Amino acid sequence: MTRHGAGVFLAVVFFGCAAVQEQEVLDVLQAQVKAWNAGSVDGYMEGYWNSPDLTFVSGGTVTKGYDVVLERYRRHYSSPELMGTLSFSDETVRFLSESSAIVTGEWRLARQLDHPWGRFTLLLHKKPEGWKIVYDHTSSGGQ
Amino acid sequence: MTRHGAGVFLAVVFFGCAAVQEQEVLDVLQAQVKAWNAGSVDGYMEGYWNSPDLTFVSGGTVTKGYDVVLERYRRHYSSPELMGTLSFSDETVRFLSESSAIVTGEWRLARQLDHPWGRFTLLLHKKPEGWKIVYDHTSSGGQ
Repeated sequence: MTRHGAGVFLAVVFFGCAAVQEQEVLDVLQAQVKAWNAGSVDGYMEGYWNSPDLTFVSGGTVTKGYDVVLERYRRHYSSPELMGTLSFSDETVRFLSESSAIVTGEWRLARQLDHPWGRFTLLLHKKPEGWKIVYDHTSSGGQ
Repeated sequence: MTRHGAGVFLAVVFFGCAAVQEQEVLDVLQAQVKAWNAGSVDGYMEGYWNSPDLTFVSGGTVTKGYDVVLERYRRHYSSPELMGTLSFSDETVRFLSESSAIVTGEWRLARQLDHPWGRFTLLLHKKPEGWKIVYDHTSSGGQ
């Protein structure tokens, strides 16, 4: 293999790894959407880090701890009508290290009575159990 | 020096460095508040990375690029009355590497007509010119 050939080969391997890592992160979000649209808040919550340090920022409020965030989701989305159909779009992943990434994107809920939407910023860390959201800042559009 | 003594010494040095790094990051925010309250949007903007890749998320919108974010700030806060008095509180810094940090906190504007407030999530990178905000997600409270 020529040096040029080796360079191309390494670039392909590196790009391959980066693409795999990115897909692993996006898979967390896709699993969340799938669980949500199957009516499972508990399944949706599996994307989050199960820790008292999980931080969830929404509008002007901060919710700290997996159990409290889960309880908040259960309270706000207590019926299929309130859950509606979730979709994410415009997701962008930035790796800050091999084990941390920021994802930004748009969220939309299609419900019979309204169609709330907005943006999210997620910090994910690679844990022994896989990539998990450790910090979530979500805001609403149309304010 | 005993091994125990060396451990304590190293712990103090490490803690010292972490505290210095954290203060460097918080200094960026404090300089922004100072510039804002002196009526300088341009001075406030010096906390941001001067790049077309600067990303600013507010509610449901994304603004990309330093010049566009600056123009947005100038348009939204075109007078001392609209700028009001800015304060930050409850700031928490998390280092993701030696050169990247996430800061979350609360912002408040005291103005004659209203008192908007909310939360921010900032990603800062250590650039040759110092710590700069490269990504900002800001949302409003009381929604």
